[in-house]
Amino acid sequence: MEVTGTAGTTETAGAWPAAVPAQGRGTRAGPDGAADGQEAADLLERTRQAVEPELRRAVALLPEPLGRIARYHLGWEAVDGTPVTGQSGKAIRPGLVFAAARATGGQPAAAARAAAAVELTHNFTLLHDDVIDRDHTRRHRPTVWTVFGDADAVLAGDALQALAVRLLAEDSHPAAARAAARLAGCVIELCAGQQADCALEHRPPGEVTLEECLAMAEAKTGALLGCACALGALYAGAEPDEVEAMDGFGRQAGLAFQLIDDVIGIWGDPARTGKPAGADLVARKKSLPVVAALTSGTAAGAELAAYYAGSTDPAAVDRAADAVDRAGGRDWAQAQAADRMARAVHQLSRAVPDPDRAGGLLALAEFVTRRTH
Amino acid sequence: MEVTGTAGTTETAGAWPAAVPAQGRGTRAGPDGAADGQEAADLLERTRQAVEPELRRAVALLPEPLGRIARYHLGWEAVDGTPVTGQSGKAIRPGLVFAAARATGGQPAAAARAAAAVELTHNFTLLHDDVIDRDHTRRHRPTVWTVFGDADAVLAGDALQALAVRLLAEDSHPAAARAAARLAGCVIELCAGQQADCALEHRPPGEVTLEECLAMAEAKTGALLGCACALGALYAGAEPDEVEAMDGFGRQAGLAFQLIDDVIGIWGDPARTGKPAGADLVARKKSLPVVAALTSGTAAGAELAAYYAGSTDPAAVDRAADAVDRAGGRDWAQAQAADRMARAVHQLSRAVPDPDRAGGLLALAEFVTRRTH
Repeated sequence: MEVTGTAGTTETAGAWPAAVPAQGRGTRAGPDGAADGQEAADLLERTRQAVEPELRRAVALLPEPLGRIARYHLGWEAVDGTPVTGQSGKAIRPGLVFAAARATGGQPAAAARAAAAVELTHNFTLLHDDVIDRDHTRRHRPTVWTVFGDADAVLAGDALQALAVRLLAEDSHPAAARAAARLAGCVIELCAGQQADCALEHRPPGEVTLEECLAMAEAKTGALLGCACALGALYAGAEPDEVEAMDGFGRQAGLAFQLIDDVIGIWGDPARTGKPAGADLVARKKSLPVVAALTSGTAAGAELAAYYAGSTDPAAVDRAADAVDRAGGRDWAQAQAADRMARAVHQLSRAVPDPDRAGGLLALAEFVTRRTH
Repeated sequence: MEVTGTAGTTETAGAWPAAVPAQGRGTRAGPDGAADGQEAADLLERTRQAVEPELRRAVALLPEPLGRIARYHLGWEAVDGTPVTGQSGKAIRPGLVFAAARATGGQPAAAARAAAAVELTHNFTLLHDDVIDRDHTRRHRPTVWTVFGDADAVLAGDALQALAVRLLAEDSHPAAARAAARLAGCVIELCAGQQADCALEHRPPGEVTLEECLAMAEAKTGALLGCACALGALYAGAEPDEVEAMDGFGRQAGLAFQLIDDVIGIWGDPARTGKPAGADLVARKKSLPVVAALTSGTAAGAELAAYYAGSTDPAAVDRAADAVDRAGGRDWAQAQAADRMARAVHQLSRAVPDPDRAGGLLALAEFVTRRTH
């Protein structure tokens, strides 16, 4: 079974892009980026088809009602157990597992269990983060804790974490134990990242540094994308330094994604994001562009600090967004995203000397950082 | 390093006890049970000395502040990080790992990682259960969520679950992968047990059956004691059917423990339990003796049902305890506990044909079901 395909990889043949520009600043395939977006979309569609049977087999191992809660969360069933379609996640992390396995010379199909384990781990963190952050909506549906209660959401998350590890620990693949250990280590980093995020939100804005925000974003977002790539490489039988380089690729691409996500959280089109304009500012979120602005030492930064200290005037949101921009927060975030993508590509070139093989990974990295989908 | 010792094992030589009577109905060593209690206490003390270095090495891998939260929860530190002693748990589960390894012909010291993994798993469930059940006290100290908040308690629990698996997945022991898979499967069962417990508490008392309460107790309490014994056997290189029999031993002993714990929850001496008399009745807990009484079809059962439906008269607690007794709930629970211990001993005799080797496991099983300590 071919999971990642070869369509579109020829366009990178013989020429490594120095960096993949973020958010509509042009793409490898040309100004409109259509070719790359299509490649990633196709790859993700094939990923979903390849990973879903493995995921369904795994989730079927859960006793009820934990299975039912998991199937609701995963977008497979309505609250009453009726099957639904088209409400699942994008499967970016399993896509990275498959693409990384292919890039390092393996058969993507052989990494299906690793792909499922990474997706289950991602969903365990979503279940717990939604409880902790009191988020009401996930993938356009009510979150599990709002439907089933906190206890069921925590316990279903716990069970998904265990299920992910069980998939790998029961696998006969020679890299399975190393993959399980790596995934468990990643979970610890994810927990530390979410803990840091909560702690940062409770601290006065003036005391938060950019460095700790970047470290938090790397742990919370970069670690699992890096782990997905590393597991794909492990399952392809890659050497330890290739595995580390693949982890570095996913980790840096994940940071680029977070930076762009934070830009969208302020300036994103409400019609596309499904959130009101300036949502992160309204929530007083200490996102990366905001902290960059707050720590800029500029008059606009001081203006933003005053807004974060308590203005409730609705019109103030627009002025706050403008202040982030004038303080350089937006430019900084976009430049950082481009820099992180350059680092990601550098790591990728270490792990995969043949650019022909790297097409799928690059397409996915662009897909998550462009976010026009 | 000898962990489980040999003291006291000669008294079982050549003679399998048919069942180990529960709670002061006499013991293998004679009416006062002093010898056995001492054997178990010595074994647990040696267990703590053997497992704590492994636990501390593991917990040192956690990033801060997750490490600090874990060290507080484990009774190693005060809230401010000052070292404290004598506030840790009894280490019954690691004791079972070591004793099971020895009973099946292995070196207990070789199973230290498995013992630590089981103890970390137990502590992960305590952290989450305390959040879910809103319990304020654990081992005579404020629970983690009351000190650090819900988010930190959930995340520290998540990290301990991952750490437990990482210990096994990184271990070079030939049984490590099977042990990791088994532990992960056990975690899923623990989650289902806790979920069932919460769900039972929200249902009308008249609709709860004894069968589902026993199934819940097996999943919530028996599963991890069984897993501890199974992991000890796996690390000793035992055959699959021995491993299953050891799991059965721990599982049945765990059920016996839960039955006795439920009896103590009603009739336990407040000076020893640290809880007010009839604490489980005050909390309207659907414990096993209570459900046995409620489903007895007796006049006393109906009297108890009326109390569970809403009496708030303080004197009513004593009358409710008396009603459980008259309805046969106390006798049933004690007979069930003895029956479960008989089943446990039967499983043990399957796994360990030489009774000389089984002394440590029997001493631990008696220790947890006698509970005079």
